[in-house]
Amino acid sequence: MIKGIDHIGIAVKSIEGSLSFYEKVLGLSLLKVEEVEEQGVKVAFIQCGNVKIELLEPLFEDSAVGAFIQKRGEGLHHVALGVRTIEERINELKEKGVQMIDDVPRKGAGEASIAFLHPKSANGVLYELCEKTLEEEKKHG
Amino acid sequence: MIKGIDHIGIAVKSIEGSLSFYEKVLGLSLLKVEEVEEQGVKVAFIQCGNVKIELLEPLFEDSAVGAFIQKRGEGLHHVALGVRTIEERINELKEKGVQMIDDVPRKGAGEASIAFLHPKSANGVLYELCEKTLEEEKKHG
Repeated sequence: MIKGIDHIGIAVKSIEGSLSFYEKVLGLSLLKVEEVEEQGVKVAFIQCGNVKIELLEPLFEDSAVGAFIQKRGEGLHHVALGVRTIEERINELKEKGVQMIDDVPRKGAGEASIAFLHPKSANGVLYELCEKTLEEEKKHG
Repeated sequence: MIKGIDHIGIAVKSIEGSLSFYEKVLGLSLLKVEEVEEQGVKVAFIQCGNVKIELLEPLFEDSAVGAFIQKRGEGLHHVALGVRTIEERINELKEKGVQMIDDVPRKGAGEASIAFLHPKSANGVLYELCEKTLEEEKKHG
Protein backbone atom coordinates (compact mmCIF):
# COMPACT_ATOMS: atom_id res chain seq x y z
CA MET A 1 0.00 0.00 0.00
CA ILE A 2 3.02 2.33 0.43
CA LYS A 3 5.04 3.39 -2.63
CA GLY A 4 7.88 4.88 -0.62
CA ILE A 5 8.77 8.10 1.15
CA ASP A 6 7.60 11.16 -0.75
CA HIS A 7 9.11 13.80 1.52
CA ILE A 8 10.34 14.62 5.00
CA GLY A 9 8.77 17.67 6.65
CA ILE A 10 10.98 19.93 8.76
CA ALA A 11 9.65 22.81 10.88
CA VAL A 12 11.75 25.97 10.57
CA LYS A 13 11.26 29.50 11.86
CA SER A 14 12.31 30.98 8.54
CA ILE A 15 12.70 29.36 5.12
CA GLU A 16 14.90 32.22 4.00
CA GLY A 17 17.18 31.68 6.99
CA SER A 18 17.36 27.91 6.44
CA LEU A 19 17.88 27.66 2.70
CA SER A 20 21.59 28.44 2.71
CA PHE A 21 22.27 25.25 4.70
CA TYR A 22 20.47 23.14 2.09
CA GLU A 23 21.64 24.99 -1.00
CA LYS A 24 25.15 26.21 -0.16
CA VAL A 25 26.29 23.71 2.46
CA LEU A 26 24.66 20.49 1.18
CA GLY A 27 24.52 21.58 -2.48
CA LEU A 28 20.84 20.61 -2.95
CA SER A 29 18.34 22.32 -5.28
CA LEU A 30 15.27 24.30 -4.30
CA LEU A 31 12.29 23.13 -6.37
CA LYS A 32 9.65 25.66 -5.36
CA VAL A 33 8.18 27.74 -2.57
CA GLU A 34 4.45 28.09 -1.97
CA GLU A 35 1.94 29.02 0.70
CA VAL A 36 -0.69 26.58 1.92
CA GLU A 37 -3.05 28.96 3.66
CA GLU A 38 -5.43 26.25 4.91
CA GLN A 39 -2.57 24.89 6.98
CA GLY A 40 -1.01 28.21 7.92
CA VAL A 41 2.37 27.43 6.40
CA LYS A 42 4.77 28.52 3.75
CA VAL A 43 6.61 25.50 2.30
CA ALA A 44 9.82 25.07 0.35
CA PHE A 45 10.55 21.82 -1.48
CA ILE A 46 14.18 20.78 -1.89
CA GLN A 47 15.24 17.78 -3.97
CA CYS A 48 17.51 15.42 -2.05
CA GLY A 49 18.21 12.57 -4.49
CA ASN A 50 15.39 10.07 -4.14
CA VAL A 51 13.32 12.11 -1.64
CA LYS A 52 12.18 15.69 -1.15
CA ILE A 53 12.77 17.77 1.94
CA GLU A 54 9.85 20.06 2.78
CA LEU A 55 10.70 23.08 4.93
CA LEU A 56 7.64 24.33 6.80
CA GLU A 57 7.55 27.92 8.03
CA PRO A 58 4.51 28.95 10.09
CA LEU A 59 2.50 31.86 8.67
CA PHE A 60 1.23 32.61 12.19
CA GLU A 61 2.12 31.45 15.68
CA ASP A 62 -1.00 29.44 16.44
CA SER A 63 -0.79 27.34 13.28
CA ALA A 64 0.04 23.67 13.84
CA VAL A 65 3.67 24.20 12.80
CA GLY A 66 3.94 27.40 14.85
CA ALA A 67 2.72 25.51 17.93
CA PHE A 68 5.16 22.67 17.20
CA ILE A 69 8.12 25.08 17.10
CA GLN A 70 7.01 26.82 20.30
CA LYS A 71 6.79 23.49 22.10
CA ARG A 72 9.73 21.52 20.67
CA GLY A 73 11.81 23.98 18.67
CA GLU A 74 12.77 23.66 15.03
CA GLY A 75 13.36 20.16 13.71
CA LEU A 76 11.93 17.01 12.16
CA HIS A 77 8.16 17.33 11.91
CA HIS A 78 6.68 14.51 9.77
CA VAL A 79 7.36 11.81 7.20
CA ALA A 80 5.11 11.64 4.14
CA LEU A 81 4.41 8.23 2.63
CA GLY A 82 3.52 8.19 -1.07
CA VAL A 83 0.26 6.34 -1.81
CA ARG A 84 -2.35 5.97 -4.52
CA THR A 85 -6.13 6.00 -3.92
CA ILE A 86 -5.76 7.73 -0.58
CA GLU A 87 -9.40 7.23 0.49
CA GLU A 88 -8.95 3.45 0.27
CA ARG A 89 -5.69 3.66 2.23
CA ILE A 90 -7.36 5.69 4.99
CA ASN A 91 -10.15 3.12 5.28
CA GLU A 92 -7.64 0.27 5.30
CA LEU A 93 -5.64 1.91 8.10
CA LYS A 94 -8.78 2.56 10.14
CA GLU A 95 -9.84 -1.06 9.73
CA LYS A 96 -6.43 -2.04 11.10
CA GLY A 97 -7.06 0.10 14.21
CA VAL A 98 -5.00 3.18 13.30
CA GLN A 99 -6.29 6.47 14.66
CA MET A 100 -6.32 9.09 11.89
CA ILE A 101 -6.05 12.85 12.41
CA ASP A 102 -7.72 13.22 9.01
CA ASP A 103 -10.52 10.78 8.21
CA VAL A 104 -11.03 12.60 4.93
CA PRO A 105 -8.14 13.74 2.70
CA ARG A 106 -7.39 17.45 2.54
CA LYS A 107 -5.36 19.60 0.19
CA GLY A 108 -1.63 19.83 0.81
CA ALA A 109 1.19 21.61 -0.99
CA GLY A 110 1.54 20.98 -4.72
CA GLU A 111 -2.13 19.99 -5.17
CA ALA A 112 -1.52 16.76 -3.27
CA SER A 113 -4.24 15.02 -1.27
CA ILE A 114 -2.95 14.35 2.21
CA ALA A 115 -4.08 12.78 5.49
CA PHE A 116 -2.19 12.54 8.78
CA LEU A 117 -2.10 9.50 11.07
CA HIS A 118 -2.16 10.22 14.80
CA PRO A 119 1.38 9.83 16.24
CA LYS A 120 0.05 7.65 19.05
CA SER A 121 -0.75 5.00 16.44
CA ALA A 122 2.86 5.10 15.18
CA ASN A 123 5.22 5.24 18.18
CA GLY A 124 5.35 9.01 18.29
CA VAL A 125 6.01 9.60 14.57
CA LEU A 126 3.71 11.93 12.64
CA TYR A 127 3.13 10.10 9.33
CA GLU A 128 1.30 11.68 6.41
CA LEU A 129 -0.27 9.84 3.51
CA CYS A 130 0.36 11.81 0.33
CA GLU A 131 -1.29 11.25 -3.04
CA LYS A 132 -0.08 13.47 -5.81
CA THR A 133 -1.79 14.38 -9.05
CA LEU A 134 -0.19 12.67 -12.06
CA GLU A 135 0.83 16.06 -13.42
CA GLU A 136 2.65 16.95 -10.20
CA GLU A 137 4.28 13.52 -10.15
CA LYS A 138 5.61 13.97 -13.67
CA LYS A 139 7.11 17.33 -12.76
CA HIS A 140 8.83 16.47 -9.50
CA GLY A 141 8.67 12.69 -9.05
CA MET B 1 28.01 15.81 -2.46
CA ILE B 2 24.77 14.14 -1.26
CA LYS B 3 23.46 11.04 -3.10
CA GLY B 4 20.08 11.10 -1.40
CA ILE B 5 18.45 9.94 1.80
CA ASP B 6 19.73 6.56 2.93
CA HIS B 7 17.46 6.10 5.93
CA ILE B 8 15.32 7.81 8.55
CA GLY B 9 16.13 6.94 12.17
CA ILE B 10 13.25 6.56 14.63
CA ALA B 11 13.71 6.13 18.39
CA VAL B 12 11.43 3.45 19.86
CA LYS B 13 11.23 1.87 23.30
CA SER B 14 10.89 -1.59 21.81
CA ILE B 15 11.53 -2.84 18.28
CA GLU B 16 9.38 -5.89 18.96
CA GLY B 17 6.51 -3.66 20.04
CA SER B 18 6.86 -1.35 17.02
CA LEU B 19 7.30 -3.83 14.19
CA SER B 20 3.64 -4.76 13.83
CA PHE B 21 2.83 -1.18 12.78
CA TYR B 22 5.43 -1.31 10.01
CA GLU B 23 4.86 -4.89 8.92
CA LYS B 24 1.16 -5.55 9.47
CA VAL B 25 -0.33 -2.06 9.21
CA LEU B 26 1.87 -0.48 6.53
CA GLY B 27 2.80 -3.78 4.83
CA LEU B 28 6.55 -3.05 4.76
CA SER B 29 9.36 -5.63 4.98
CA LEU B 30 11.88 -6.06 7.76
CA LEU B 31 15.40 -6.35 6.29
CA LYS B 32 17.44 -7.18 9.39
CA VAL B 33 17.95 -6.58 13.08
CA GLU B 34 21.36 -6.04 14.64
CA GLU B 35 23.02 -4.58 17.72
CA VAL B 36 25.51 -1.72 17.50
CA GLU B 37 27.10 -1.98 20.91
CA GLU B 38 29.36 1.05 20.47
CA GLN B 39 26.24 3.19 20.22
CA GLY B 40 24.18 1.30 22.77
CA VAL B 41 21.37 0.48 20.36
CA LYS B 42 19.58 -2.39 18.72
CA VAL B 43 18.48 -1.42 15.20
CA ALA B 44 15.91 -2.81 12.79
CA PHE B 45 15.99 -1.82 9.11
CA ILE B 46 12.70 -1.74 7.24
CA GLN B 47 12.49 -1.17 3.48
CA CYS B 48 10.08 1.61 2.56
CA GLY B 49 10.30 1.89 -1.23
CA ASN B 50 13.19 4.19 -2.03
CA VAL B 51 14.35 4.68 1.59
CA LYS B 52 14.96 2.57 4.67
CA ILE B 53 13.42 3.19 8.08
CA GLU B 54 15.80 2.44 10.96
CA LEU B 55 14.14 1.71 14.29
CA LEU B 56 16.50 2.42 17.18
CA GLU B 57 15.93 0.73 20.53
CA PRO B 58 18.24 1.72 23.39
CA LEU B 59 20.23 -1.13 24.94
CA PHE B 60 20.51 0.89 28.17
CA GLU B 61 18.91 4.05 29.52
CA ASP B 62 21.94 6.34 29.38
CA SER B 63 22.72 5.62 25.73
CA ALA B 64 22.16 8.54 23.37
CA VAL B 65 18.87 7.07 22.13
CA GLY B 66 17.78 6.19 25.68
CA ALA B 67 18.38 9.79 26.75
CA PHE B 68 16.51 11.06 23.68
CA ILE B 69 13.43 8.97 24.55
CA GLN B 70 13.53 10.05 28.19
CA LYS B 71 13.63 13.71 27.16
CA ARG B 72 11.35 13.83 24.10
CA GLY B 73 9.59 10.48 23.94
CA GLU B 74 9.60 8.08 21.01
CA GLY B 75 9.71 9.60 17.54
CA LEU B 76 11.80 10.91 14.66
CA HIS B 77 15.47 10.90 15.65
CA HIS B 78 17.69 11.57 12.61
CA VAL B 79 17.95 11.64 8.83
CA ALA B 80 20.88 9.87 7.19
CA LEU B 81 22.28 11.33 3.97
CA GLY B 82 24.05 8.87 1.66
CA VAL B 83 27.57 9.99 0.68
CA ARG B 84 30.79 8.63 -0.76
CA THR B 85 34.29 9.45 0.59
CA ILE B 86 32.91 10.49 3.97
CA GLU B 87 36.22 11.96 5.23
CA GLU B 88 36.21 14.45 2.35
CA ARG B 89 32.57 15.33 3.02
CA ILE B 90 33.31 15.96 6.70
CA ASN B 91 36.19 18.29 5.79
CA GLU B 92 34.05 20.07 3.22
CA LEU B 93 31.27 20.65 5.76
CA LYS B 94 33.72 21.92 8.37
CA GLU B 95 35.22 24.33 5.84
CA LYS B 96 31.70 25.62 5.24
CA GLY B 97 31.30 26.32 8.96
CA VAL B 98 29.25 23.28 9.99
CA GLN B 99 29.80 22.02 13.52
CA MET B 100 30.25 18.23 13.48
CA ILE B 101 29.48 15.88 16.37
CA ASP B 102 31.91 13.44 14.75
CA ASP B 103 35.05 14.91 13.21
CA VAL B 104 36.15 11.38 12.37
CA PRO B 105 33.80 8.72 10.95
CA ARG B 106 32.74 5.90 13.23
CA LYS B 107 31.15 2.52 12.62
CA GLY B 108 27.36 2.42 12.30
CA ALA B 109 24.92 -0.39 11.62
CA GLY B 110 25.57 -2.59 8.58
CA GLU B 111 29.31 -1.81 8.49
CA ALA B 112 28.58 1.74 7.37
CA SER B 113 30.89 4.65 8.18
CA ILE B 114 28.86 7.42 9.77
CA ALA B 115 29.30 10.93 11.17
CA PHE B 116 26.68 13.20 12.75
CA LEU B 117 26.33 16.93 12.17
CA HIS B 118 25.42 19.01 15.20
CA PRO B 119 21.70 19.94 15.03
CA LYS B 120 22.50 23.58 15.75
CA SER B 121 24.19 23.74 12.34
CA ALA B 122 21.03 22.40 10.67
CA ASN B 123 18.01 24.16 12.23
CA GLY B 124 17.46 21.54 14.87
CA VAL B 125 17.67 18.48 12.61
CA LEU B 126 20.12 15.71 13.48
CA TYR B 127 21.68 14.77 10.13
CA GLU B 128 23.99 11.80 9.69
CA LEU B 129 26.41 11.26 6.84
CA CYS B 130 26.38 7.59 5.90
CA GLU B 131 28.85 5.81 3.64
CA LYS B 132 28.14 2.16 3.01
CA THR B 133 30.46 -0.57 1.87
CA LEU B 134 29.81 -1.63 -1.71
CA GLU B 135 28.81 -5.09 -0.52
CA GLU B 136 26.20 -3.64 1.84
CA GLU B 137 24.97 -1.35 -0.90
CA LYS B 138 24.47 -4.25 -3.29
CA LYS B 139 22.51 -6.17 -0.72
CA HIS B 140 20.15 -3.45 0.49
CA GLY B 141 20.56 -0.45 -1.79
